[in-house]
Amino acid sequence: MSTGHPATVHAESAMDAALDAAREAAAAGDVPVGAAVFALATGDLVAVAANERERRADPTAHAEIVAIREAARVLGRWRLDGHALAVTLEPCTMCAGALVAARVEHLYFGAADPKAGACGSLYQVCDDPRLNHRVDVTWGVREPECAALLSAFFAERRRAGP
Amino acid sequence: MSTGHPATVHAESAMDAALDAAREAAAAGDVPVGAAVFALATGDLVAVAANERERRADPTAHAEIVAIREAARVLGRWRLDGHALAVTLEPCTMCAGALVAARVEHLYFGAADPKAGACGSLYQVCDDPRLNHRVDVTWGVREPECAALLSAFFAERRRAGP
Repeated sequence: MSTGHPATVHAESAMDAALDAAREAAAAGDVPVGAAVFALATGDLVAVAANERERRADPTAHAEIVAIREAARVLGRWRLDGHALAVTLEPCTMCAGALVAARVEHLYFGAADPKAGACGSLYQVCDDPRLNHRVDVTWGVREPECAALLSAFFAERRRAGP
Repeated sequence: MSTGHPATVHAESAMDAALDAAREAAAAGDVPVGAAVFALATGDLVAVAANERERRADPTAHAEIVAIREAARVLGRWRLDGHALAVTLEPCTMCAGALVAARVEHLYFGAADPKAGACGSLYQVCDDPRLNHRVDVTWGVREPECAALLSAFFAERRRAGP
């Protein structure tokens, strides 16, 4: 993934922040997924968030939704054009729809999610000509680290029992 | 829609509350969509919300997301099993995904959305055997009132100009 292109460098930095957030989620008992919103031109991080579903008891508190809401709050507008989102796991239907709704320009994700992913696996929500916005998608960013975090979390959960 | 079956009666009451919320949205300059979460067994309203995207400058503040988050807060848990959501307009991809994520049992909606609807129009997110939850769907509840609110809002906007 290291082509040296500025956007790629920015995306890798954002993914590092997302990975840190994912580690915090795991430590708190939430499935370790992290996300970061950044400005495409400068790489400036606008929002970094973790999956907080269990901690907040909020079914919508996936990392992407929390990061998008925080970015909109910081920027003072609901349109996130000029911005990209990096997330450790392929977004589900809800989160892919949120990327379209927020007019996010580019999605970078780490691990694919064959069971629920909506950005290439089960659906192509980010690249649907029928919708009023399309999001460019790059996958595989820091994929080994992103996937390893999830594998370790679920392996630990299985060891601990139900 | 008036079959007299308790769930249908409950859904119609919830849709009336959702319609009231939608009217408030229109008065505030937001696209008039309203939603209500209710207990399937009793019809008790747990949360009623309007689309607040413009007012909150939050791209995720569709009526369904706001209602689901409020219902989870009231119930103190992210699983909304035993509950249904009534909404005046067919949910988009984001909101349909949120219904699945929250394990909502039944969706009742008013007007179909051929441009963005994800519960029968463009996608079948609520009835996808590959996902880990399915949501029963009933459409057409108070459809004329739901559609008329939207038509009036956009007609007014066109008259007012850009």
